[in-house]
Amino acid sequence: MVVALVGASGKLGSVVSSLLKRQHLIFPVDLKNAEYRSLNDIPYEYDIIIDVSCPQQSVFSVQNAVENKIPIVIACTGHSEEQLKLIKKCAEEIPVFLAYNMAVGAEVFKEASVFIAERFSSDVHIHEQHHKFKKDAPSGTAVELKRELEKTKNDVSTSSARGGDVVGTHEVSFYGQDELIKLTHIAENREVFARGICKVAEYVRCQRPGFYTMADFVDNFTVKTR
Amino acid sequence: MVVALVGASGKLGSVVSSLLKRQHLIFPVDLKNAEYRSLNDIPYEYDIIIDVSCPQQSVFSVQNAVENKIPIVIACTGHSEEQLKLIKKCAEEIPVFLAYNMAVGAEVFKEASVFIAERFSSDVHIHEQHHKFKKDAPSGTAVELKRELEKTKNDVSTSSARGGDVVGTHEVSFYGQDELIKLTHIAENREVFARGICKVAEYVRCQRPGFYTMADFVDNFTVKTR
Amino acid sequence: MVVALVGASGKLGSVVSSLLKRQHLIFPVDLKNAEYRSLNDIPYEYDIIIDVSCPQQSVFSVQNAVENKIPIVIACTGHSEEQLKLIKKCAEEIPVFLAYNMAVGAEVFKEASVFIAERFSSDVHIHEQHHKFKKDAPSGTAVELKRELEKTKNDVSTSSARGGDVVGTHEVSFYGQDELIKLTHIAENREVFARGICKVAEYVRCQRPGFYTMADFVDNFTVKTR
Amino acid sequence: MVVALVGASGKLGSVVSSLLKRQHLIFPVDLKNAEYRSLNDIPYEYDIIIDVSCPQQSVFSVQNAVENKIPIVIACTGHSEEQLKLIKKCAEEIPVFLAYNMAVGAEVFKEASVFIAERFSSDVHIHEQHHKFKKDAPSGTAVELKRELEKTKNDVSTSSARGGDVVGTHEVSFYGQDELIKLTHIAENREVFARGICKVAEYVRCQRPGFYTMADFVDNFTVKTR
Repeated sequence: MVVALVGASGKLGSVVSSLLKRQHLIFPVDLKNAEYRSLNDIPYEYDIIIDVSCPQQSVFSVQNAVENKIPIVIACTGHSEEQLKLIKKCAEEIPVFLAYNMAVGAEVFKEASVFIAERFSSDVHIHEQHHKFKKDAPSGTAVELKRELEKTKNDVSTSSARGGDVVGTHEVSFYGQDELIKLTHIAENREVFARGICKVAEYVRCQRPGFYTMADFVDNFTVKTR
Repeated sequence: MVVALVGASGKLGSVVSSLLKRQHLIFPVDLKNAEYRSLNDIPYEYDIIIDVSCPQQSVFSVQNAVENKIPIVIACTGHSEEQLKLIKKCAEEIPVFLAYNMAVGAEVFKEASVFIAERFSSDVHIHEQHHKFKKDAPSGTAVELKRELEKTKNDVSTSSARGGDVVGTHEVSFYGQDELIKLTHIAENREVFARGICKVAEYVRCQRPGFYTMADFVDNFTVKTR
Repeated sequence: MVVALVGASGKLGSVVSSLLKRQHLIFPVDLKNAEYRSLNDIPYEYDIIIDVSCPQQSVFSVQNAVENKIPIVIACTGHSEEQLKLIKKCAEEIPVFLAYNMAVGAEVFKEASVFIAERFSSDVHIHEQHHKFKKDAPSGTAVELKRELEKTKNDVSTSSARGGDVVGTHEVSFYGQDELIKLTHIAENREVFARGICKVAEYVRCQRPGFYTMADFVDNFTVKTR
Repeated sequence: MVVALVGASGKLGSVVSSLLKRQHLIFPVDLKNAEYRSLNDIPYEYDIIIDVSCPQQSVFSVQNAVENKIPIVIACTGHSEEQLKLIKKCAEEIPVFLAYNMAVGAEVFKEASVFIAERFSSDVHIHEQHHKFKKDAPSGTAVELKRELEKTKNDVSTSSARGGDVVGTHEVSFYGQDELIKLTHIAENREVFARGICKVAEYVRCQRPGFYTMADFVDNFTVKTR
């Protein structure tokens, strides 16, 4: 793959960059500290855009992707309704992958939680743990998981612990009658997010135009190719 | 329900009996210590047979069920190929439910494990814990789980711990790259097995003739009625 | 042992009663539903009083113990300052054991938590889980544990989950730099509390006059007799 | 500190090196790929030797430490009886710290396990988990822990899981009657070992001559300075 990586000098961007470099050609793009300041500055062709910058920037990237008729992976959160609408419009012409939590296992964990909730009569509690510098609680993943689980269960409660340098641990307890099921996801280090981005990039490259999320990747790709 | 309970004075039988009695009429059957020594001794009609005795005995029970055109729940393990064949033959005429692990959560746990294995690239290990008097290791549930998981994964390893009065804890670890998923099922007490039998009895009563297992109960019943 | 059991027909009292009966002679005392309505009604001698009733009642029991020069185990919570003072005064003449959490393992768990906190540089979080009918949160044990740990650590946080029929699970996480230690105590059923009371009764019987708690039992008795 | 780091270009050595460099002056020593090939080549004075090479090499290092009257930290495993005897002889003249598992938390974990075993009547099982490339099982830490626990408990069993890139997780389960205690130590990354070495180096620098281990560090240093 020849990749244009937007947001290449950010925290996540630099890990993605160093992972991709081992096998692929990259054009790093960033307002500062990168080889190119914008996608338009790249004088060569690229196969795919990976954008790990910010919502505003990602809108320009997706328009560039449409112009070049190439796929794009957007890996940042916090798009406005309007930005999302625009992105989905673009997805009619090219493959667009929008990912909030890049760890493949986190998506599997979420889907398995829903699977259990649908089948097991129980009270449900989500307990999440992160490093002490994480200010918001519960985590975005816990909030999203709660919303998903409440489609099946009434009143899913959550709790949070902050301490040390925990990358991210999420635990769902299903308290049944005389038995319980517990499902845990542990991110061991921050590389896992970068690695997820690289995996979905290879996946989305081969797709038809459309709007894709982690659920598509997990359900269609991993199940079929196992 | 009016239930003929075969094996009523066994360890499991007596718990099932006391649970059922709260809401249903029971005719307890056992070679000793029960009101009736055989199904043929019961001078009344019954709606369903629950057999918690042994493979040999269950063959007689299923034949009695066919004669009376009523459903049967068989909750014992260790049937020979031939016995199984006979039971399945009977299932053409009446609903037959054959259950190995009666805890509903244990079935959900097993299915969720397979769900994760199919989607998450990882090494898999099963660790099971039981009370110190359990002689066989790994447990029957762990063996069956391993067989199921090996349809997707190479070489699923297992380990066992024996101690105290642990009813039954099964833990599947999916070790991925930079992240891991862990799924745990804990049986808190032995009533959970009796409770499962009572639940499936109510389920199978309303089914057409056929051969049913815990998977049918979990997938069709609980998902639809949640 | 010949035991006068005050509060014999309460929830905890009846479990203690049925455990003790297997090996000891008991005189059950309670305002209703028991053989005797007060200690004074017992026309025989007894070796020890076990009081599982309530703070007010336990004051009468301890006075009776002083009169008879026999040891007493008090296993109820919520004594006023004044009541405690009186109880400790009595302990100058007879052995008095006052226990809040009767599970021996819960005391060991608490002491081991303090042991770790004193040695391991870390942030600390207590997560406790109980059945859905438990109204107060965090649990009394978690509150006491927090108080103990805060002698060593700043700002120990807590969280609570309520669901199913969980008897009581307490988990302390010590988040260090690049490593973490987790200590968990699980009460598997309610008998554990009754069993603890019986054990401390046998212990306190052989002690000199004085005021004893679970810590004395765990540190002096179990360590020496292992 | 001015440190002579022997084994500086090994796997562990290079992590120790990069950690120390942030605050201290280092002279890296190694047979290849280092600034100096032996301690004797260093033309400057140093305050302490840290040896992360191998048993044979560490014998030379400890002799050099004696000559220079400076403390030494030896962080490699597998010394012969004879080598150990020599090292302990040297410890009469200088402070010698010999450490097998460098993670401070792992030592606290071990001591807390013994603390619980001494107080809690239970069956004990050790379950350890490591990455799939670890060939030996059970781990050295599990073997040592088993030996320590068997001073108190009969027959401590162990089990092992290998998978993914798990750095090292050790779990001790104490199965009591109606309750259980579980203690877990998780090494989140390999830096934890290097960090432990740096901490003990600062500790041992201020000690009198003598033979020190992780237990001394944990019990004397952390408890007093908390």
